[in-house]
Amino acid sequence: MPKFIRVDMKSKKVTTEECPENYAGLAGRGLTSTFVANEVKASCHPLGHYNKLIFAPGYLTGTSAANSGRLSCGAKSPLTGGIKESNTGGTFGQKMSKMDIKAIVFEEIPAEDKYYVVKITMDGVSFDEAPAETIGMGNYAAIKVLQAKYGPKVGVAIIGPAGEMRLTAANISFADPQSNIRSAGRGGLGAVMGSKKIKAVVIDDTGAGKVAIADVEAFKSASKRFTTALTTHPVTGQGLPKYGTNVLVNILNEAGGLPTKNFRTGRNDWANDIGGETMAERIEARGGKTTHGCHAGCIIRCSQHYNDKEGKYLTSGFEYETVWALGANACIDDLDAIAYADREFDEVGVDSIDVAVAVGVAMEAGIIPWGDAKASLDLIMEIRKGTPLGRILGSGAAAVGQMYGLSRVPVVKKQAIPAYDPRAVKGVGLTYATTPMGADHTAGYAVATNILKVGGFVDPLGKEGQVELSRNLQIATAAVDSTGMCLFIAFAILDIADGFNALVDMINARYGLSLTADDVVELGKNILRAERDFNKRAGLTNAHDRLPEFFEEECAPHNVTWDFTDEEVDSVLNF
Amino acid sequence: MPKFIRVDMKSKKVTTEECPENYAGLAGRGLTSTFVANEVKASCHPLGHYNKLIFAPGYLTGTSAANSGRLSCGAKSPLTGGIKESNTGGTFGQKMSKMDIKAIVFEEIPAEDKYYVVKITMDGVSFDEAPAETIGMGNYAAIKVLQAKYGPKVGVAIIGPAGEMRLTAANISFADPQSNIRSAGRGGLGAVMGSKKIKAVVIDDTGAGKVAIADVEAFKSASKRFTTALTTHPVTGQGLPKYGTNVLVNILNEAGGLPTKNFRTGRNDWANDIGGETMAERIEARGGKTTHGCHAGCIIRCSQHYNDKEGKYLTSGFEYETVWALGANACIDDLDAIAYADREFDEVGVDSIDVAVAVGVAMEAGIIPWGDAKASLDLIMEIRKGTPLGRILGSGAAAVGQMYGLSRVPVVKKQAIPAYDPRAVKGVGLTYATTPMGADHTAGYAVATNILKVGGFVDPLGKEGQVELSRNLQIATAAVDSTGMCLFIAFAILDIADGFNALVDMINARYGLSLTADDVVELGKNILRAERDFNKRAGLTNAHDRLPEFFEEECAPHNVTWDFTDEEVDSVLNF
Repeated sequence: MPKFIRVDMKSKKVTTEECPENYAGLAGRGLTSTFVANEVKASCHPLGHYNKLIFAPGYLTGTSAANSGRLSCGAKSPLTGGIKESNTGGTFGQKMSKMDIKAIVFEEIPAEDKYYVVKITMDGVSFDEAPAETIGMGNYAAIKVLQAKYGPKVGVAIIGPAGEMRLTAANISFADPQSNIRSAGRGGLGAVMGSKKIKAVVIDDTGAGKVAIADVEAFKSASKRFTTALTTHPVTGQGLPKYGTNVLVNILNEAGGLPTKNFRTGRNDWANDIGGETMAERIEARGGKTTHGCHAGCIIRCSQHYNDKEGKYLTSGFEYETVWALGANACIDDLDAIAYADREFDEVGVDSIDVAVAVGVAMEAGIIPWGDAKASLDLIMEIRKGTPLGRILGSGAAAVGQMYGLSRVPVVKKQAIPAYDPRAVKGVGLTYATTPMGADHTAGYAVATNILKVGGFVDPLGKEGQVELSRNLQIATAAVDSTGMCLFIAFAILDIADGFNALVDMINARYGLSLTADDVVELGKNILRAERDFNKRAGLTNAHDRLPEFFEEECAPHNVTWDFTDEEVDSVLNF
Repeated sequence: MPKFIRVDMKSKKVTTEECPENYAGLAGRGLTSTFVANEVKASCHPLGHYNKLIFAPGYLTGTSAANSGRLSCGAKSPLTGGIKESNTGGTFGQKMSKMDIKAIVFEEIPAEDKYYVVKITMDGVSFDEAPAETIGMGNYAAIKVLQAKYGPKVGVAIIGPAGEMRLTAANISFADPQSNIRSAGRGGLGAVMGSKKIKAVVIDDTGAGKVAIADVEAFKSASKRFTTALTTHPVTGQGLPKYGTNVLVNILNEAGGLPTKNFRTGRNDWANDIGGETMAERIEARGGKTTHGCHAGCIIRCSQHYNDKEGKYLTSGFEYETVWALGANACIDDLDAIAYADREFDEVGVDSIDVAVAVGVAMEAGIIPWGDAKASLDLIMEIRKGTPLGRILGSGAAAVGQMYGLSRVPVVKKQAIPAYDPRAVKGVGLTYATTPMGADHTAGYAVATNILKVGGFVDPLGKEGQVELSRNLQIATAAVDSTGMCLFIAFAILDIADGFNALVDMINARYGLSLTADDVVELGKNILRAERDFNKRAGLTNAHDRLPEFFEEECAPHNVTWDFTDEEVDSVLNF
């Protein structure tokens, strides 16, 4: 039977039980969100002892299915004040599944003032004081210290200096197969982990078997069909493997939806200097890797190894959103400078979207000049030093906006708005406004249908069809986030019906179920219902489902505004 | 007919109209809150162009009635995100009434980046660029500059450096009859004024007559009875005139409700060093004034002139709450140091409660040591410099808590909890939790009945009777805040029935009305209804009507906890 492990950080008592009945049919985001909605006091302080941090792999995590490597992390968010699920690649989730651990829950707060490494093996859970040198250390080096101590293959979940400081943009970092860094990035979950005095969780699956499959043949057959869908679709089979997510810079710039200079315009004339094509050329010229998977079994391989001028590894998981936020929104046309910043975000352990958007807000405030790469890097380095300015920046875009008295602050529910202007890509604007997560493109990626023409086409500049698009994608995404699949599989299954069917067939084959497409939709709806119910009890209402008022300004080149009524916005999640 | 003046700071268009029908029967808080609820978009950014700042004197402001000098200021609060009414003494409100100005509303935001002085005379409203030297200047000196330019007797409303920086604890300062400083302190209204680029509003009532009174004889007679009540009651007739509000230090310490070391305990052994008796002795020894009124016609005279060791004026309006926050809660046993801090709060223009509580939170965070007077003053001076640390502190206790990752942060709706421990003075705890204003003792001062035995007695440590007490006081206070009366008159009218009747009679005599006590109660309820309706639309729900969870810890010496259920708390404003 799958194990459900509760770790009390105050008493150090560990309870390993069979999965409680009410969570039995759930995994990934479905499990973390249902758990948080059920068991976390909605009105609690996110850094107080009532909050709980849960890790749960998805239905298929750790199986041989392509791209099934995701781990969901959940808690009440210190950034938004609402529920948070943030998922990540890396090796941690797959090891949990192989060890038949359905979820690990961290509860309470130690009385003593020291950091712990929580170790999980087939023998159970134990606690070590964190090695002194890891405190305040960058994540790359700290992972090395832990893997030297606990074994080179252990999975690692770790907080950096930002998590130790409990900053609201602090993330949880996870070692990937090359011991580089993947992140459960958004919403400040690293601060929750830091509040519980957990520097790291290491997981050693020595002695674990394979993930149990109820019907091996059916699984194999479905898995093959699923793989075919991924390799056939142009986005997952060609675009992402070749250029990574950063292929989007030129596409969004062309579409007029690449937010530039703190969302003043949707197009700029230096986009190509920072785009995916330029990045791929540079990576090849410097002997890096243009394609690379963040977990075992990934066949999309949208990550990369970006080397510095000397050919030395600098960063990976160097995403479009980070490049956009510094490159377009903060007007920095220097891809190397952005790569150094991306590395530092991983080292210090912060959400690269929220803090990179915060850099743009800092420019808006006049703290540093627009487009100044050197000043931006210096500013970002303040976080690790724990200076007041670093703490403000590491608390995210909303915090910079508050401390500097600005109203032009691109956030929803205090979480930074990502890389697609909501006026020019209206479907994703509705997602930003209404997802229970705070502004989050991944919660209902209408960019796919608005811009990439995946899953049909809805005119990005018009209102027609956008409400339904955002609603359906949010429902589908909640379900996909429960499967353990990378969200990018959605490109393929939105267009290729057999890919979607194969995904459902794999889940059925693994668990001996007979779920239908309708069941998947109902799962997605139920997850969103639980999340919204938590948020309501936490004090988030429709009034928080609003974009900042500055989006009433026209956005060039299409001169579009955010023109949905409150009633239209409120109809998105009307079930 | 009373004038209702709207000032558009973008176009500089001024509209002077008769008071709109729907505001005709309202004044003071009743007018500001109804106006904000009706005309400010509840979901707007408080520093954006949709917010509006309104000044309105009360029903009796500017009459010959004792203690009728208050001016209400209202807007959407940048601190709480909800509605805000903050009222003040000084000369401004009385001049407005004499000029028959019912309200002044400031709307919109200038496109140009410069500060204005808005000048109001009997001839109308005009705009000057603010004198360059006043920008960044402390309020005492800036008021001198303005009174040198506009006349020594003009009323002045001004923001200090904190308001220019649009910090969420920035207040609006008002010159009193001696050109010292009174404040509309709470909720960041100075940031709203700063966002509208108004450095100051000067009002010159040259040519104005007296406030019109419908029935002069009835007014005189009622006024006399009212004065008798004030001079007869021990609190308004003796305690406050003799020692000021700081008389409360020893009283609350004795009661075990003086929050000490960031609300760790309710009693300490250095209270007498900072109490009202010690303060009065020191003031006398240094040739200051132990009693002084903040507006013409005050007969309670709870203010004072506190001089430094050289006998030079240092500060006035040196209140119990400020002395408590630094003296007990931040453990600073040096009254002179607290006085220097109080002066700086007035100079830089911040709420002395929120920022002084923030100093305690900064000690909690380890930024400076507990009780370190020198370090506290240095820290407070950072605000004026506009450093990142100063901006954090000047944004209030909640901001310090967020940037330093703390959960022990004494705020409700992000506004700092004042000087009475809610566990040991439970009635005021219910007020903190439920008032639409964010934690505010003045919104329903149950301390009166819990501790001072005014208006009867309700055991401060028990739950019985507290819900009704807080409810009734909140209703009465909303009405009193509409009269233009200093809230301290409530001590007298709670105990002396004829004092209350005289107050109603004065309002009737002024306007030719025949209001009853029931009408006054209904007025109070309607104000609270309007405020709660605004807050609901702004996204504040019952989930925000909660004290921080650390109040579940026991508070010595009575070892009491905050033990109201959510249902009990939610029943306070159940009408």
